[in-house]
Formats: sequence, C-alpha cells, structure tokens
Amino acid sequence: MDRSAVPPPVTRVLDAAQAWLPGLMARAEERLAAVVGDEGPLADDAQATLRAGGKRLRPMLVLVCAGPQAGEGALRAATAIELVHMATLVHDDVLDAAPLRRGLPTVVATAGRDQATSVGDLLLARAFSELAVPGAERQVQHLARASVGLALGELAQRRDAFDTGISAERYLERCRLKTARLFECACLIGRASAGAADDSVEQLERFGREIGLAFQLLDDVLDVAGPAERTGKARGTDLLDGTVTLPLIIARERDPELAAVDLRSLTPESAEEVCDRIAATGALDEVRADARARVEAAKRALAEAPGLDRSQRELLALVADGVVERYA
Amino acid sequence: MDRSAVPPPVTRVLDAAQAWLPGLMARAEERLAAVVGDEGPLADDAQATLRAGGKRLRPMLVLVCAGPQAGEGALRAATAIELVHMATLVHDDVLDAAPLRRGLPTVVATAGRDQATSVGDLLLARAFSELAVPGAERQVQHLARASVGLALGELAQRRDAFDTGISAERYLERCRLKTARLFECACLIGRASAGAADDSVEQLERFGREIGLAFQLLDDVLDVAGPAERTGKARGTDLLDGTVTLPLIIARERDPELAAVDLRSLTPESAEEVCDRIAATGALDEVRADARARVEAAKRALAEAPGLDRSQRELLALVADGVVERYA
Repeated sequence: MDRSAVPPPVTRVLDAAQAWLPGLMARAEERLAAVVGDEGPLADDAQATLRAGGKRLRPMLVLVCAGPQAGEGALRAATAIELVHMATLVHDDVLDAAPLRRGLPTVVATAGRDQATSVGDLLLARAFSELAVPGAERQVQHLARASVGLALGELAQRRDAFDTGISAERYLERCRLKTARLFECACLIGRASAGAADDSVEQLERFGREIGLAFQLLDDVLDVAGPAERTGKARGTDLLDGTVTLPLIIARERDPELAAVDLRSLTPESAEEVCDRIAATGALDEVRADARARVEAAKRALAEAPGLDRSQRELLALVADGVVERYA
Repeated sequence: MDRSAVPPPVTRVLDAAQAWLPGLMARAEERLAAVVGDEGPLADDAQATLRAGGKRLRPMLVLVCAGPQAGEGALRAATAIELVHMATLVHDDVLDAAPLRRGLPTVVATAGRDQATSVGDLLLARAFSELAVPGAERQVQHLARASVGLALGELAQRRDAFDTGISAERYLERCRLKTARLFECACLIGRASAGAADDSVEQLERFGREIGLAFQLLDDVLDVAGPAERTGKARGTDLLDGTVTLPLIIARERDPELAAVDLRSLTPESAEEVCDRIAATGALDEVRADARARVEAAKRALAEAPGLDRSQRELLALVADGVVERYA
C-alpha cells in the first residue's frame, strides 16, 4: 500500500497498529487490485476507480474488527466491502454526471454513462463473488443488506431532491441508508470473520452507525464550508444537485430567506452565496457538534463491545477520531 | 401464477409437469412479489418491472433442474436469478432509453434514469440477499459469475457498437456473456439446490448455454424480421442502437452494399430497408438453422446429463423446444 497516498488519520491508525494491520491492509489492497485487474477489458476503468477510491476506511474497519488473526475470510470481506463502495461511487458519479473524484477523472467522464453503469454493476457482482465461500453466508447477508440500503438511500435522495422542507429525521434516515449501513456492515462482517455471533456485535454495529453518520454530517459541512482547494469540488455542489442536507435544514429555521430559496434556480455563484448565508447562521458549528457527539457515542458503544482485544479497541478509537479530525 | 399471461410453450411445460412444477412456479412467483413489495418506497417501480418480466424461463429452469423435491433453497435460487434478470432489464432500458418493455412503460420511462439506475442496483443486491443462507455458497458463486458475465457482455456490446466489421466469434462470445451465462447459471444453481456436485452438471451447463445462445440468436432474427406487432418494437431497433448481430454479419458477406452501411446515419425508415436487404440475402434462415442446431445440441447434452429423472428430462426438452417455437 502506498502510504504517501493516504491521509494522516489513516496513517496514524496504521502506525499505531504495530505489524498486523498494515500487513493485512497491504494484502487487502493487493487482493482488490487483482480482482479489478482480472476482468480483462474492464481493467482500465476499474483501476482508475480503484486509485480514486481513497482511504480504504471500510476495509480497515473490517480488518480491525476481525483482529490480528484475520485470515482469508476477513480479507475477502474487506475486499468485498470496498468493491461495493467503489460500485456506489461509480454509479453515483453517473447520476451526478461528476467529472472528477479526488482529482481524478471519473469513469463516467472517461468512458461515458453506459460503460460506467456496467462497470458499477460489474464491481457489485464481483463483491459477492468474493464472499462465495463456505461459511460466509452471514457476510453475504450483511453485505446484501447494506447494498440494498445504499440503493434505497440513493432513491430517497433523488425523491427528496430540491425539497427544502424535508425534516432532519428524514435527512438522518437517508444518511443511515446511504452511508452508515456500510460502516455498520464493515464491523459486522469483520466480527463474523472472527467467528463472533451476531448478537455479540450489537454495540459494534452501533459504533459503525455513529461514525458513519458523523462521517456524512461532516462531509455535508464541507460542501458548504469548503475550501474548494481542499475538498476538490466547488462549494455548494450539493445545493446545485438539489441535495438538502442538515446545514440547510438547521439554517432555514434561523434565516427565513434561506427557507425561501429555490434550489432549481441556483447558479454556481448564487450557490456559494447560499453557503455563506448558511454559515452565517452558525448551523455549521451545530452540525460539527452533532458529529462530535456521535463520535463520542460511538466510543461509548465501543467500550461496551465484547470480544475485542486492547489493540483493536485502540485502533477503532483512532478510526473514530480520524473521522472528526479529517474535517477539523 | 396467472396462466393466461404466459406464452404457450411455457404453458405447455407447466401442463406437462403434473402437479409439481406449477406449484413450485407459483411459490417462486409469490416469493418474487413479496421480495419486490418489501422495499417500501420502491415497490411501485419494481412491481412494474416484475409484471413486465415475462416468461420466468430462468426460474423455471432452476426449479426443473432442482426437481420435484425442490425446497426452500431452490425457491430462493429461482427468485434470485429472476431478480438478477430484472436488474439487467432495468439497467439495459436505462442504457437504451427504452420507453416500453412487453408493452408496459419501463422504469426509466416512468421514473427517470437516476431512479432506474438505483432500482437496478437494488434488485441486484436483493438477489444476493436471497442466497444468504447456510450452504448456498456455490449458488452465490454461480450467480455472481453470471452477473459479472452480464456486465462484461453489456460492456462488450457498447464497445463494439456501430462496428459493422465484428466477427461472428466476437458476436457469439458477447451472446454467451449477455444471455447464455444466466441460462447456464439457472441449471447449475438448480442442480446445486438438489445437492448435485458441480462436476456432474457439465452437460446440463452445456444445455443451458446452447439454449441461451439459441434464444439470443432468434431474438436477433426477430429484430430484423419482425413483425413489429408481434415483437412490440420496430424492426431494426438493434441497428439503430448500433448493435451488430449475426444476421447482419452473415448478410454483409453476401451483399457488399450492406457491408458499407453506416449505422450511425440510419433513420427508422432506412433501418427497415436494411432489415429487408438482410432478409433478402437468406441470412435469417441461416441464423434460424444455427439456433435449431443449438437446440439439438442442447438435447444431446441433456441426454448425457446424469441425475435427472424422466419428468425432468421431458420438461427440459420442452423448454428447449419452446425456445425455438416461440420464434417459429
């Protein structure tokens, strides 16, 4: 694994993990590259997605939850969850007609909508191939449930598009489906790989959910706060797409003019102005505080989770902190 | 199952099956409706796809291969394969921007590209949920492999689009991925549900491949031959989409003017003229003969397939004949 390519909090988790986690992460990365490279004509597109994929947070959660003894099953699960994540990114970029992801051209930009749709389908199918081994039925179940959640979350987002009146509850439910389910799934399949019974993973599932929600909340803050140089996309991209997030939901209560904004009529310039108005209400600090509270809740759940050794607990706490620090 | 909605050859298979197959097919249909109906906000879109899905040939193959004793595992496999097929139809319709399928509006037509992309993703994820049970790892493996093949076939078709010079071998390889793999898979997962070892299913896999190829060949003949009232779409739709199929590949050798046609410049009217020219070369009869030969090869493979009882063999032979007769 190219350590120079990963952001600091992830590096810190790897540094803290003595030998076992970096070694497993490198093996997961090799496995991912082999799977993607396998598909002949597809390799180019999917390799680009692989490189753009980023932090490998979800495979890391799988492997930390599986623990130092993680074997083939955990590596397959780590690979599978990243393939599902990649599939989602490729299809999301098709839906958003996004030109760039992490500064690299998207599959839809280089290969077109049709090809990108099929590349996403292929990645999703390959994810389940990884789990086609004896005894992995719980992993298949968890990953399929998370994949269903991702699709339902995407549908909810499209259905709610341009509706500035949606409630915070509805927004959070969408975040749960679109983002948190896959983090929960990472914890569940990691523990399942270690032979833990599902009913012993409840607290860890809560851990995954809360850091997943914190992750999404802070991502939505970044879309309003920028700066563009750091996020790699213009401020207000969500607003232009019609995606109403918690910063606007909170801000519209404090600034009646925001409640009256018609997202369909926004231009890139006026979207930045709306971002400034949202920031002026103090809504961003409130969302950041919500995210921090969720990270604390995640850590409390972690403290109660059975069956983890000390190094796993330390690493998971670092992952939780990393979610907040990335956006500090 | 509404028997009036299924075409005659399928009805004939059901009639020949005494009690066991119609009963199992009805249970698979209920299961499919329950799965699709389960997903709350999605139910409307997916129900429309379910109704438009048609013949349920693939679940029927699963259940016939599983045999009279087919239980929960075979029903799950039958449901899963139809969900994958539905996912493919929904995404194909997105790619083709198709307004109708079997005379009903497509998901993309009623709900838009974005929603249809997510509906397809959801159906694919739900397919693998069905197989998340102990001991189903071979089914997961076969279905994932077939799903990978479907995506690769779609990619091959897009890559070859508008290329009138592609070889018959390349065309057949694409048909194998896009169509035959799922028929092979139906036979494999049906037999796996009955506890048969994979190495005893080689001949039946061949059976599935040959009838799948015959199915696709005859579908491609129909696109040229029509009539539109029977196929539900205008003649030459493939040509207008840039999809080069065996009728044109054979015909271009016989009619130099056909070799020179630029598919990108076709109009619906000129596409029908190209269809007439293709028909005039006798290419359609040659493709029909190829399909019939494949059905015969499928029956020979069937005769050598071990572990099937007499009623299964009779039913599979009827399915094979049905593929040809539908297009007679």
